[in-house]
Amino acid sequence: MSDSFDLVVVGSGPAGEKGAAQAAYYNKTVAIVEQSPTPGGIAVSSAGIPTKTLRETVLYMSGFRKREVYGLSLKLDPRIALEHLMTRKSEVVALMTKAVERNLTRHGIKMIQGRARLGANRTVHVSLIDGKEQTLEAKVILLATGSHPFLPPEVPFDDPDVYDAAEILQLDRIPGSLLVVGAGSVGCEYASIFTALGVQVTLVDATTRLLPFLDMEISQLQAEVFNGMGMRLTLGSPFTSVRRVEGKLEVRFADGNVLLPEKVLVATGRAGNTEGLGLEEAGVAVNDKGDILVNDGFETSAPGIYAAGDVIGPPRLASVSMEQARVAVCHAFGIQFKDRVDTLAPYCIYSIPEVAMVGMTEDQAKAAGVEYEIGRGPFSANTQARISGFQDGMIKLVFRRADRVLLGVHILGEMACELIHLGQLVLHHGEPIDRFIHATFAVPSRSEAYKYAAYDGLMRLDRRAGGAPKLSV
Amino acid sequence: MSDSFDLVVVGSGPAGEKGAAQAAYYNKTVAIVEQSPTPGGIAVSSAGIPTKTLRETVLYMSGFRKREVYGLSLKLDPRIALEHLMTRKSEVVALMTKAVERNLTRHGIKMIQGRARLGANRTVHVSLIDGKEQTLEAKVILLATGSHPFLPPEVPFDDPDVYDAAEILQLDRIPGSLLVVGAGSVGCEYASIFTALGVQVTLVDATTRLLPFLDMEISQLQAEVFNGMGMRLTLGSPFTSVRRVEGKLEVRFADGNVLLPEKVLVATGRAGNTEGLGLEEAGVAVNDKGDILVNDGFETSAPGIYAAGDVIGPPRLASVSMEQARVAVCHAFGIQFKDRVDTLAPYCIYSIPEVAMVGMTEDQAKAAGVEYEIGRGPFSANTQARISGFQDGMIKLVFRRADRVLLGVHILGEMACELIHLGQLVLHHGEPIDRFIHATFAVPSRSEAYKYAAYDGLMRLDRRAGGAPKLSV
Repeated sequence: MSDSFDLVVVGSGPAGEKGAAQAAYYNKTVAIVEQSPTPGGIAVSSAGIPTKTLRETVLYMSGFRKREVYGLSLKLDPRIALEHLMTRKSEVVALMTKAVERNLTRHGIKMIQGRARLGANRTVHVSLIDGKEQTLEAKVILLATGSHPFLPPEVPFDDPDVYDAAEILQLDRIPGSLLVVGAGSVGCEYASIFTALGVQVTLVDATTRLLPFLDMEISQLQAEVFNGMGMRLTLGSPFTSVRRVEGKLEVRFADGNVLLPEKVLVATGRAGNTEGLGLEEAGVAVNDKGDILVNDGFETSAPGIYAAGDVIGPPRLASVSMEQARVAVCHAFGIQFKDRVDTLAPYCIYSIPEVAMVGMTEDQAKAAGVEYEIGRGPFSANTQARISGFQDGMIKLVFRRADRVLLGVHILGEMACELIHLGQLVLHHGEPIDRFIHATFAVPSRSEAYKYAAYDGLMRLDRRAGGAPKLSV
Repeated sequence: MSDSFDLVVVGSGPAGEKGAAQAAYYNKTVAIVEQSPTPGGIAVSSAGIPTKTLRETVLYMSGFRKREVYGLSLKLDPRIALEHLMTRKSEVVALMTKAVERNLTRHGIKMIQGRARLGANRTVHVSLIDGKEQTLEAKVILLATGSHPFLPPEVPFDDPDVYDAAEILQLDRIPGSLLVVGAGSVGCEYASIFTALGVQVTLVDATTRLLPFLDMEISQLQAEVFNGMGMRLTLGSPFTSVRRVEGKLEVRFADGNVLLPEKVLVATGRAGNTEGLGLEEAGVAVNDKGDILVNDGFETSAPGIYAAGDVIGPPRLASVSMEQARVAVCHAFGIQFKDRVDTLAPYCIYSIPEVAMVGMTEDQAKAAGVEYEIGRGPFSANTQARISGFQDGMIKLVFRRADRVLLGVHILGEMACELIHLGQLVLHHGEPIDRFIHATFAVPSRSEAYKYAAYDGLMRLDRRAGGAPKLSV
């Protein structure tokens, strides 16, 4: 095969895979350069999929929540528990890696293992694993190199009991206690998973609330649920040092607090993988955080060079990265298929319980000067949730008062990351919450909580209109 | 309180409860006559909720499916298993009964225990439990008396090992083998639940396929999955007798087959509860099956007397029954809130795995002369399904070829009864399947299978247009 391709993709994570497949579907010749021996990126190897697998396994193995409900659960022997967890994780990783490989192969995409560096005139120089160098010529280049955990320089990551978000999955034993630094998505996911596993977890963050982009009420409810699960939360005080003192791991905080956890997970954000890519030489500009700058068509400042996924910055969600890459490829080749990324992508956190949101929070509605009302559909009043034993949380709707048009959906609770799509679709249509009133929902289903959230919203409007306080039906 | 009400509701199941609450919300005085000491109807006491609770408990207790995945499961001691199953069922039934009671109470609805019989001029005569009679006057009457299992006369239901759908929940022990007669929703639900519990189940029906209203392909796939679970299916041969011969239960079939199961569940449909209601005297007409006839506003042939729920015939779904009752009450009192029942109600079966459908099947599209195409999103290719270990089934889309407008959605697999609502909404909007292509789906989520089903559909259209066979992206 020639060393000249219509498209050369650097990186084979969600963005790289989907961008490459999109181009190949439209008969472009495509090569992917990937430095790992297997494709899939961290989504498959150390982030998305492994975390979610761990989550499911822990929920099953620990009989978490259902324990109370059924009065019986698996006895968790910590040693075999870890073995099972890791075995299951490896199985799923292998499975999903194969799925990516198969997708690339059947699309006739050439896989090249090596490190890529941009050259002049849309060339990509690849340092192959055998030490040789190969130069690829491309009509279009797509940079989809992903991101890595941001490592605060003051943290001794060489300490065997200090982990970053990529390493935590290589845990050698289930610790008695774990300190999770960083209450973002990754921090909340691991903190809750380890809590469910029976570990004494403390979650700390310099900010005063969990997941600050969430609707405030949901963020607070999440903290309450975490507390109820037995997690300790220490918010609003940044850590000042992590070090080993007399053989013990010691973490100090600005407020004077000192913790001695068995292990520490530091999850304080991510940074794009741009080092060694030769961006400057190729004329690819980055912002002050090091994220590659792109226009609406995901083209960088260098013509013909596109970028998508984690490397262009937030939201750094596999779901959005895939779409960015598809749109990038359509723009690059003038394919009339997908010309922009959904502006209403759901944001999902796979903690226990799950959290998902799409559209405006209450605070955003306020800030935008919108006269809004809310409606709550608590899972404690939902038959399916009661049956399942997981009844924390709610579906919360934010809608415009004047015409009841939906502005945002905020869900805390099991299946939140599935349920969110229904709200997303109503937002896409710019419809009022009446949609939930008039649709028939399966009974019992968690989705029904949308209907009761809408009833609650209507009732609040009635009350506001000065009617007698009324009750939901 | 006076014996005169704006609304008298007969029956307190899903239709009765929601109809009563709807009227009370709009300041009508309401009484419900219920013959049982507790409200909720069979949905709470012996059908919907108990079955679903049993399903969840069995899935959890048996570690069904996950067993293979995690290499460990709860040891099921059949005696304590039944005890746990029944305890959990009773807890949820008590909980949900309370929820209905609370809803009725806070709406100020008067509960009257007794048997109702219609009198002249919209009166309802109630035989109270103390033997007395009370007469209620009503502006409007809503009949929501529900249904009972249809009992074929040739089956000896007095035999302790022969059960109907209402009694099966009073099982005295988990049998080694169970014959389920009737492959409708109830039959499929119990047959799969008992199979998951380790019982040797044989499911028989006179028709040649499971759930004949389903899309043929889904129906066949359901049969394959049931087979794979270890269930035996004997379709296309009606039973001719059930009797006890030399101490053993013997079931004979038209094709000469003879089975000797430990227990038999007969689930051959339902019939409306109309006996003793005094329909004829009140001028309420029924059809040849005994179902009460109603118009679009759910008014019967007797002015001012409405009916909703199971007693008016199929689909006999709690979800639809509730909506019928709400619409009936709005019509009866001229309330401008809900003037018709959603014509696109999802149909859900809570078997293992779940099945859900909304809109047209392939056969219906054919019969209507529509040029259609399909798209399949198999869960075996879905990351969330692979993670969960439940990867049977698919989302199947049926859409119009010319403009890709969605016509029907058919789902087999876990969470089908939640996922169906997204397809329902796209159907409501009369949109093309492109909606699923352009929306961002959470990754990983089962909902994503909609997107890949849509890609599959587009690929089929490409092929049909004579392009080279292409691959999904």
